[in-house]
Amino acid sequence: MRVVVNAAMSADGKISSRERTQIAISGPEDFDRVDELRAASDAVMVGVGTVLADDPSLTLDSEQRRTDRVGNGDPSNPARVIADSRIRTPPDATILDDAAPTYLLVSEAAPTDFMEEMEDAGATVIAAGDDRVDLPSAFEQLEADGIDQLMVEGGGELIFSLFAADLVDECSVFVGPKIIGGRDAPTLADGDGFTEDFPALSLKAVERLDEGVLLQWDVP
Amino acid sequence: MRVVVNAAMSADGKISSRERTQIAISGPEDFDRVDELRAASDAVMVGVGTVLADDPSLTLDSEQRRTDRVGNGDPSNPARVIADSRIRTPPDATILDDAAPTYLLVSEAAPTDFMEEMEDAGATVIAAGDDRVDLPSAFEQLEADGIDQLMVEGGGELIFSLFAADLVDECSVFVGPKIIGGRDAPTLADGDGFTEDFPALSLKAVERLDEGVLLQWDVP
Repeated sequence: MRVVVNAAMSADGKISSRERTQIAISGPEDFDRVDELRAASDAVMVGVGTVLADDPSLTLDSEQRRTDRVGNGDPSNPARVIADSRIRTPPDATILDDAAPTYLLVSEAAPTDFMEEMEDAGATVIAAGDDRVDLPSAFEQLEADGIDQLMVEGGGELIFSLFAADLVDECSVFVGPKIIGGRDAPTLADGDGFTEDFPALSLKAVERLDEGVLLQWDVP
Repeated sequence: MRVVVNAAMSADGKISSRERTQIAISGPEDFDRVDELRAASDAVMVGVGTVLADDPSLTLDSEQRRTDRVGNGDPSNPARVIADSRIRTPPDATILDDAAPTYLLVSEAAPTDFMEEMEDAGATVIAAGDDRVDLPSAFEQLEADGIDQLMVEGGGELIFSLFAADLVDECSVFVGPKIIGGRDAPTLADGDGFTEDFPALSLKAVERLDEGVLLQWDVP
């Protein structure tokens, strides 16, 4: 499975303010590029923090792209994937609606009640890992279900975990013309952080877009 | 006075790891560019956190550039400036050596003993602000002392304070091919962070350098 991280950050590396409200960092050109990347993916993934903060749908904006996908024999929207080690997904989250299938990745410590509630709400639950989601194992199950390209849209905790597990193939970062600041504001990669063996990237492309820059990194 | 922020950050916006050790983010092309920018500046500034973490000298690497400065009637190295609201500068810090004059910015709450110790160690002490350094007022005093271009090399706390005080004219950021991660790792702009009225930047130049990208932002 190919894992493509895609996110927008401020010029100082923040994906949101310390209040975790959504902040417009990019613009229409980048929104369109993100929609195109979603359309080319089999599934779009976020961490549960993003579900709680933004309640995203992760569906395609472009009707044409939905039509094109159906013409290619695909579902109109890519599937959605949530990583939720601490069973915080609310049953009324938009991401669980019927616009696309949704996979909920939990650990094997997740209570049966919660898993049943999520399945009733429309999710396909994948349990992997003792007390946190074992991402490599969960991704194998996604791949077995036909997910060949997985786009990851955040947040910083999930993106760090993916780098820590060496699961990222490509990382596209829009850097926007804004300073957000804040020692507690979420960044592109949070988690505990690396102190050695920092993942190395290789710069594939640089493109001016909207009022910022799109940096596309490969992870060799 | 023109204030130019210059820093290198990882692809995820970190200027160091959570352990605050120095990490090579850029490379020889960027080092040379930074040395050139230092040579073109009247003073180079850091926050005391950077003094404590890295013990920098902030002097020029290039002997030719020192010679050229002297030929132009300037001191061989630019002056150094430390912002130190909490009187943490150690008297044996390299930045206090006699390679260049050093200004220490403190608040008026700084004890006389500390200011005398710093002056004995070679610093020119500027006291401004009640209990934190009042940066606009201190900068006026630097400007009156002939500092027309001030280069700021970090850290994230100082850079945030400068944006919050609307003192930054330009911000050059090298984005390097590495993920550092860490919700507690220092970023380009830390501090409390903005929650509204985010400082807006204008992208002046984009240049591939070493294995990363140099982004040059104006602050209109």
